[in-house]
Amino acid sequence: MLPSSTICAVSTPSGQGGIAVIRISGDRAIAACNNLFIPVRKGISLTDPSVKNKIIFGNVVKANKVIDEVLVTVFRAPSSYTGEDTVEISCHGSPFIQQEILKLLLANGCRMATAGEFTQRAFLNGKLDLSQAEAVGDLIASSSAAAHRMAMQQMRGHYSSMFARLRDDLLHFATMMELELDFSEEEVEFADRRQLLSLASHIEDVINRLSGSFATGNVIKNGIPVAIIGETNAGKSTLLNRLLHEERAIVSDVHGTTRDAIEDTVVMGGVLFRFIDTAGIRNTADRLELLGIERTFRKMEEAAVILWVIDLTGNGILPEAIYEKTHLSDTQQLILVLNKADRLPPECLPEKQAMYQAGHHDVVVISAQSGAGMDKLEEKLIACIPATGENDVIVSNLRHYEALTKASEAVRQVIRGLETGAPGDLIVQDVRECINQLGQITGQQIHTEEVLRNIFRNFCIGK
Amino acid sequence: MLPSSTICAVSTPSGQGGIAVIRISGDRAIAACNNLFIPVRKGISLTDPSVKNKIIFGNVVKANKVIDEVLVTVFRAPSSYTGEDTVEISCHGSPFIQQEILKLLLANGCRMATAGEFTQRAFLNGKLDLSQAEAVGDLIASSSAAAHRMAMQQMRGHYSSMFARLRDDLLHFATMMELELDFSEEEVEFADRRQLLSLASHIEDVINRLSGSFATGNVIKNGIPVAIIGETNAGKSTLLNRLLHEERAIVSDVHGTTRDAIEDTVVMGGVLFRFIDTAGIRNTADRLELLGIERTFRKMEEAAVILWVIDLTGNGILPEAIYEKTHLSDTQQLILVLNKADRLPPECLPEKQAMYQAGHHDVVVISAQSGAGMDKLEEKLIACIPATGENDVIVSNLRHYEALTKASEAVRQVIRGLETGAPGDLIVQDVRECINQLGQITGQQIHTEEVLRNIFRNFCIGK
Repeated sequence: MLPSSTICAVSTPSGQGGIAVIRISGDRAIAACNNLFIPVRKGISLTDPSVKNKIIFGNVVKANKVIDEVLVTVFRAPSSYTGEDTVEISCHGSPFIQQEILKLLLANGCRMATAGEFTQRAFLNGKLDLSQAEAVGDLIASSSAAAHRMAMQQMRGHYSSMFARLRDDLLHFATMMELELDFSEEEVEFADRRQLLSLASHIEDVINRLSGSFATGNVIKNGIPVAIIGETNAGKSTLLNRLLHEERAIVSDVHGTTRDAIEDTVVMGGVLFRFIDTAGIRNTADRLELLGIERTFRKMEEAAVILWVIDLTGNGILPEAIYEKTHLSDTQQLILVLNKADRLPPECLPEKQAMYQAGHHDVVVISAQSGAGMDKLEEKLIACIPATGENDVIVSNLRHYEALTKASEAVRQVIRGLETGAPGDLIVQDVRECINQLGQITGQQIHTEEVLRNIFRNFCIGK
Repeated sequence: MLPSSTICAVSTPSGQGGIAVIRISGDRAIAACNNLFIPVRKGISLTDPSVKNKIIFGNVVKANKVIDEVLVTVFRAPSSYTGEDTVEISCHGSPFIQQEILKLLLANGCRMATAGEFTQRAFLNGKLDLSQAEAVGDLIASSSAAAHRMAMQQMRGHYSSMFARLRDDLLHFATMMELELDFSEEEVEFADRRQLLSLASHIEDVINRLSGSFATGNVIKNGIPVAIIGETNAGKSTLLNRLLHEERAIVSDVHGTTRDAIEDTVVMGGVLFRFIDTAGIRNTADRLELLGIERTFRKMEEAAVILWVIDLTGNGILPEAIYEKTHLSDTQQLILVLNKADRLPPECLPEKQAMYQAGHHDVVVISAQSGAGMDKLEEKLIACIPATGENDVIVSNLRHYEALTKASEAVRQVIRGLETGAPGDLIVQDVRECINQLGQITGQQIHTEEVLRNIFRNFCIGK
């Protein structure tokens, strides 16, 4: 990466459309575009310093032939997204035209941008900190209101300021400890160790709360995994279709996931649910075949919510029969879905329902076929959404979570050191390690190109 | 269609990307956007008349929550693409964000634009004539340099001015005829009938030349259809892959056609070629099975170029054996591709080649496997591209072609009338019909909503 090189890329989604936007950033951005652009109004030059934040209509020209009629916008450093001179060319959304303009830019000394390189430059030029830069990627990928809100909060710096406060506390702590060390021969104690202990405990609390929010952040970002479990013919597929039906069209509009890619997702209550269809559990004459359904059990273990579908017209197996084979955690929620209610004589329903409820299960009676009871089921699913306050800082980034885990460990060492009367210089080392880990989240402590490349790898080209 | 309603749509290709652009056009465009946008710099209002052609940074806000940080550009009527007040919102390329902003716009009195409605408004507001408006669609769809050049020429009005000149000639003609009619009782002949005849013949020539260019325009737009015909195992598939290989990556970049959709296309010599793979012709013990390969023959008849692939190591059937079953026209080109040259003992090649050339065929010797001779074959294919002058006006639009055909018929009637001394009022009727047909091309004569809807139906939403 040469920060001084000028990069270009199509920033709009690939394919055919009304408009496409090509973004160029770097020292040569304005000069390169000026070489290939002829404004319709005579006497305007992009290189004129007064040309900025303005839309200019004109033609992109190659060897006297017009490639396209375009709108050009010039942003001058540092008032641009990247902090560098930046030009945006808004052309017709023809892939052929996009290619031709890119070729012209390459011929004029630009090079193709790598994934996320515009945002990476914004970070390197101090326009965003690293967690804000990462949030840009999350924002673009967000497909539900909750994921969007989380990414937006992070991008707008609310998240970073929380870490800045933590870091300030730790720096204060370290300063106190180091002062003490400087004067250690004089046996002066600048830092009251009890006070320090209380500060360390507070910091530990905050870090653990943040670290603990990752479980929530992760499901908000990637969707709440819901496994649909049940015997074959219990109506799992009908239930899946029914669950997806309502917002199906919007789902495909919103993020175009195909059915094969990640099982299937739908947004309910502003949160993404990821439904995992499992192989039906087969039922032999009198006993459950447990062989060959290991995979279903694994999916069940990965899920946050389990919809156990039971055919009311049959002799549904209770989940207890499976429990011994699986290891469901306390945080997993089980909902018993009693299906095919419409095929059961109405007088039999109360008895059946009571029977299943006796196991203290969360029970919903539905007919996946007719749709009856689906509203109740959806309510129950929405109730599974982890509660978050409007302004809660939630960690959703694995890299941040890992840094927090290490920071938490370092703080624990600090506390142990203070409690056992460890020497100040050892304690300071742990405090510095904690500062370092938190600094990695917002980027103060990251300088290697490799780490950055890894972070921006999953961005789209052109962002 | 209510021209006074305010329309909105995402104008960039659908999906996820760095940037998306939402376009809003109509009387309420600026007011609607002002309701949901808060500029970062205080004191700016989109509704301020001095705000135009400027980029303004700010937030799209819904119920005090920031939906996205965006760049907004205001264009004021008539200086916009549609000729109406227009706002472009450049937001993050998240489908979720795009949906949210569209919902806010709908809540603020906008409605979703139909396909091509922005361009349709540009036409209705006199920013473009109809053939220029249609060229916008062709431009976006163009995937080769030749198709792009043709659409660009049409969009920039070179095409329309040709029709304007024709129309002027005809109007002059009609005026002369009508003057004559007004004074017919006085037996005055304002229009010298021989001069009129010569003008009509000239007009007929021009119309026929334009109409005749449709064959060329059509293949430039949709690709030159090349059928690959041959016996099974002649190496057709290897040849197809070899033909597509070089620019394969660019093909998928350029217009993302999948292999299934339209067989397979590749750009060579700046022109799109559409390769049509056919079922191999089966060879029984001693005679050709002609049954069941009707479909291959049909594809052959549709093709402009036929690549007849012959396995040099076998006893290749000559196309003469098939001719009786098919009806190849004079304009179709046949190239005999002698394949597997690498497997033939070198001393046998000249004899074989001479044998096939004896039938006066265009012969190329290749090895699809090794790639030998492919450059020669590509040269021959490029030589099949219809020759067009740099500034030739070429008709590529079926609607225009149909209008030209009717115009041509009307002119022939005029000529016949003049030759047979038909009454002036009858001749004028035919002249008017001709003017009417030509007017349909540039849109002077089209007023029904239905016709317009049909024309813009194939546009993308947002253009």
